[in-house]
Amino acid sequence: MFIAKVVGNVWATRKHRELKTYPLLLVKAVDPCGSGKFSGDTALALDGGVGAGPGDVVLVVDEGGSARKVLGAPRCPVRTVICGIVDQTSSGDEVKKYA
Amino acid sequence: MFIAKVVGNVWATRKHRELKTYPLLLVKAVDPCGSGKFSGDTALALDGGVGAGPGDVVLVVDEGGSARKVLGAPRCPVRTVICGIVDQTSSGDEVKKYA
Amino acid sequence: MFIAKVVGNVWATRKHRELKTYPLLLVKAVDPCGSGKFSGDTALALDGGVGAGPGDVVLVVDEGGSARKVLGAPRCPVRTVICGIVDQTSSGDEVKKYA
Amino acid sequence: MFIAKVVGNVWATRKHRELKTYPLLLVKAVDPCGSGKFSGDTALALDGGVGAGPGDVVLVVDEGGSARKVLGAPRCPVRTVICGIVDQTSSGDEVKKYA
Amino acid sequence: MFIAKVVGNVWATRKHRELKTYPLLLVKAVDPCGSGKFSGDTALALDGGVGAGPGDVVLVVDEGGSARKVLGAPRCPVRTVICGIVDQTSSGDEVKKYA
Repeated sequence: MFIAKVVGNVWATRKHRELKTYPLLLVKAVDPCGSGKFSGDTALALDGGVGAGPGDVVLVVDEGGSARKVLGAPRCPVRTVICGIVDQTSSGDEVKKYA
Repeated sequence: MFIAKVVGNVWATRKHRELKTYPLLLVKAVDPCGSGKFSGDTALALDGGVGAGPGDVVLVVDEGGSARKVLGAPRCPVRTVICGIVDQTSSGDEVKKYA
Repeated sequence: MFIAKVVGNVWATRKHRELKTYPLLLVKAVDPCGSGKFSGDTALALDGGVGAGPGDVVLVVDEGGSARKVLGAPRCPVRTVICGIVDQTSSGDEVKKYA
Repeated sequence: MFIAKVVGNVWATRKHRELKTYPLLLVKAVDPCGSGKFSGDTALALDGGVGAGPGDVVLVVDEGGSARKVLGAPRCPVRTVICGIVDQTSSGDEVKKYA
Repeated sequence: MFIAKVVGNVWATRKHRELKTYPLLLVKAVDPCGSGKFSGDTALALDGGVGAGPGDVVLVVDEGGSARKVLGAPRCPVRTVICGIVDQTSSGDEVKKYA
């Protein structure tokens, strides 16, 4: 599980039928400690019903079992899902507000 | 889950019987934000019925449970599957068309 | 599984209902051999009932099946869970006390 | 899933009883595009019945569920299994023959 | 799956009840080809009944399903387990003896 920023959208007309219902978002992990810069590669995530969009800092769970449970879609090919929108993080004395 | 470009094909005469039905494709993750350059190593993926081929930019799900569901093959040894073909991505003001 | 230090807290008002019960913690893997410096990226973890907080060095299990078992929450979208608090490590002649 | 070269053998007298039946092989991922050089660390794999040996370029599936299905051994502690022997790859105009 | 050296021990009084039975070991992946130097980060592993200790070179399976089967503990939060002790590896003409 990690914290990421939604950095974009993806459109795909031809895709598995179980994926048709969900917006496809690009997310990039952020390190909320210190610089707050991006870490790791851009991943593709589905919104698990929290209404996330570009610019939001979100909770990402990168595990197939979790993703299918969140979507209530046991046959959906999915591994990465957005499960929350981060309001604030604290690390030592440093507090960051995102929402 | 990530976005990748199909960069090649693989032929294997001797392989597990459950793998005989599916084309084997080489995919390389791309970062649709900014430079669009490749990120990460070349992976091997099966086509989950979307008809992808070299040059296509695709949705890849890297999880065994998903892959077996997509193929409808509960006994197939598979982890990485192509689930869609990307038409377009947007990130900030930047829009990229792939199809 | 790895050893990590709890480095912060996360607040998220809008999140999946199954996540509402658990504190969200930021953890950073530490290498208990040699320098003891951080390794890898900051991850997000749930406390599996051990009462961990910022500053603690903890046992982290990064696997969905384990995480849901620890929480006793079979429908929770979770992958990373804190399962213990480290008292001490030894490596060669070097002993480090954390608690 | 990835393509790898078998680079060695491993002997272990004391091991889990379910592992006693299978040869233990060392594999190293190769990138079949461009230089064909190794990428990533050396992994340990079991042969899923294709008769692979040192020097072969193989299909590797790195997922526990797949590995146990391939071996027909539902109680075997295994994650990485060789599922095929690569004859040839193509990437753009470049064709590589391995067998 | 990978080969690793046991490099230390971990003590944790407060931990999940299912973890109380097993020694907690620190392991560091080794590359048995060429230099034999360490690769990757230090991980935490449970001994799956082979009696491994500091200095041993071991077989590590990093997958939850495998780990729980090896321990015979279906409710244990565990992902990384030691399944064997390596006697010897060979790679090309190079043979290394560990035990």
